[in-house]
Amino acid sequence: MQIFYAPQIEGDEYRLPEDESKHCIRVLRMQLGDELFLTDGRGNLHKARIADDNPKRCLVQIVSTQHEFGKRPFNLHIAIAPTKNIERFEWFLEKATEIGVDTITPLLCDRSERKDIKVDRLQKILISAMKQSVKAYLPTINAIQPFKNFIKSTHQADFKTIAHCNSWDLPPFQQVIQRGGSVLVLIGPEGDFTPAEVNLALNSGFREVSLSTSRLRTETAGVVACHTANLINGV
Amino acid sequence: MQIFYAPQIEGDEYRLPEDESKHCIRVLRMQLGDELFLTDGRGNLHKARIADDNPKRCLVQIVSTQHEFGKRPFNLHIAIAPTKNIERFEWFLEKATEIGVDTITPLLCDRSERKDIKVDRLQKILISAMKQSVKAYLPTINAIQPFKNFIKSTHQADFKTIAHCNSWDLPPFQQVIQRGGSVLVLIGPEGDFTPAEVNLALNSGFREVSLSTSRLRTETAGVVACHTANLINGV
Repeated sequence: MQIFYAPQIEGDEYRLPEDESKHCIRVLRMQLGDELFLTDGRGNLHKARIADDNPKRCLVQIVSTQHEFGKRPFNLHIAIAPTKNIERFEWFLEKATEIGVDTITPLLCDRSERKDIKVDRLQKILISAMKQSVKAYLPTINAIQPFKNFIKSTHQADFKTIAHCNSWDLPPFQQVIQRGGSVLVLIGPEGDFTPAEVNLALNSGFREVSLSTSRLRTETAGVVACHTANLINGV
Repeated sequence: MQIFYAPQIEGDEYRLPEDESKHCIRVLRMQLGDELFLTDGRGNLHKARIADDNPKRCLVQIVSTQHEFGKRPFNLHIAIAPTKNIERFEWFLEKATEIGVDTITPLLCDRSERKDIKVDRLQKILISAMKQSVKAYLPTINAIQPFKNFIKSTHQADFKTIAHCNSWDLPPFQQVIQRGGSVLVLIGPEGDFTPAEVNLALNSGFREVSLSTSRLRTETAGVVACHTANLINGV
């Protein structure tokens, strides 16, 4: 099932950009009349047929549309410190998109070794993972934010949690969140959140949780939190 | 917490191999009397002190030993087809070790694009992930086996499952397995198991399961299965 990302789609026709036209006609060798799928990344999945197989400006005609395709039954926001090695963070983005996530906010924490990210590049990874896993919702990735600013802004989540390893005997994440409620989970950098950061979160209504009895790397914690939240919600 | 892998450890003293001596003394700048940890990968975690800080043949003296350190409350065996891109399979190995797994068997399936693996290289990834996540059990990785041979051999698991995406409405993995029982899960290559492979497994007492409502890549399916089994077992 070939799926293309078409955020600007409107009406019954769509012209693929030059690079996607080339991919479609030259690489995939699709022809006049062949079927493909388009998504706007906002829940619409369009079935379309090739009306002009020009390899530079392929034109497709929409045949039918599914709205809210694969709509998730709850909202998941993961705020996470990007890893020093950006590949590990990119891996997290790919896996979280496959498993299912709505919003990702990169955090700048006291112990962050990586201070900046290239949102454009990360966005491409999200688009590619969305297409690969046949989803019609593109996760939102925000600009990197200092931890304190993020904590101070208002968050509507039913379950606001901070995952860390600074103490044992924290309640398990899967017992704190409940089916159907929106979830916000904070995950720290290599070296974890500082005690001051954890306290700030606790004072702002976050609950501290444990994601696993194992010591997990940042990007593994992100994937594990994502899967746990989906599992609790029957996804 | 610095941990070294010492599979041949015996008695109260241990001499680190040359590369680890160098790492310990030159890179980490550890000195006479400094403490470190050793594991044999079979559940023993030894606390030790440096008795000779020679950078080529560092000698340590064992101070105390914890047996069955972090022993997992159930057995998990994941039999999985290695991905075409070996890096994806290596990611799976690292993440599964962090999260917790006992045995991994690479499978050669009808649709496998990768026919061989280098077990030595993969073993190194397991050792590194074990040390990183401070575990004392090294997962076993077997040689690659044809799917049919693997299915025909005897498996003692309480829950023998095959995860695939060939049909909808399969029972969720997390509802088929139960706490405390040993789990065996089969995961196919890119392109999934063939219907014939699924039938062969069903005829051999495996139950078919779904790991997620999302379409997951092979290595993501492996990580998700690993985390689900651990979650069900309270790990």
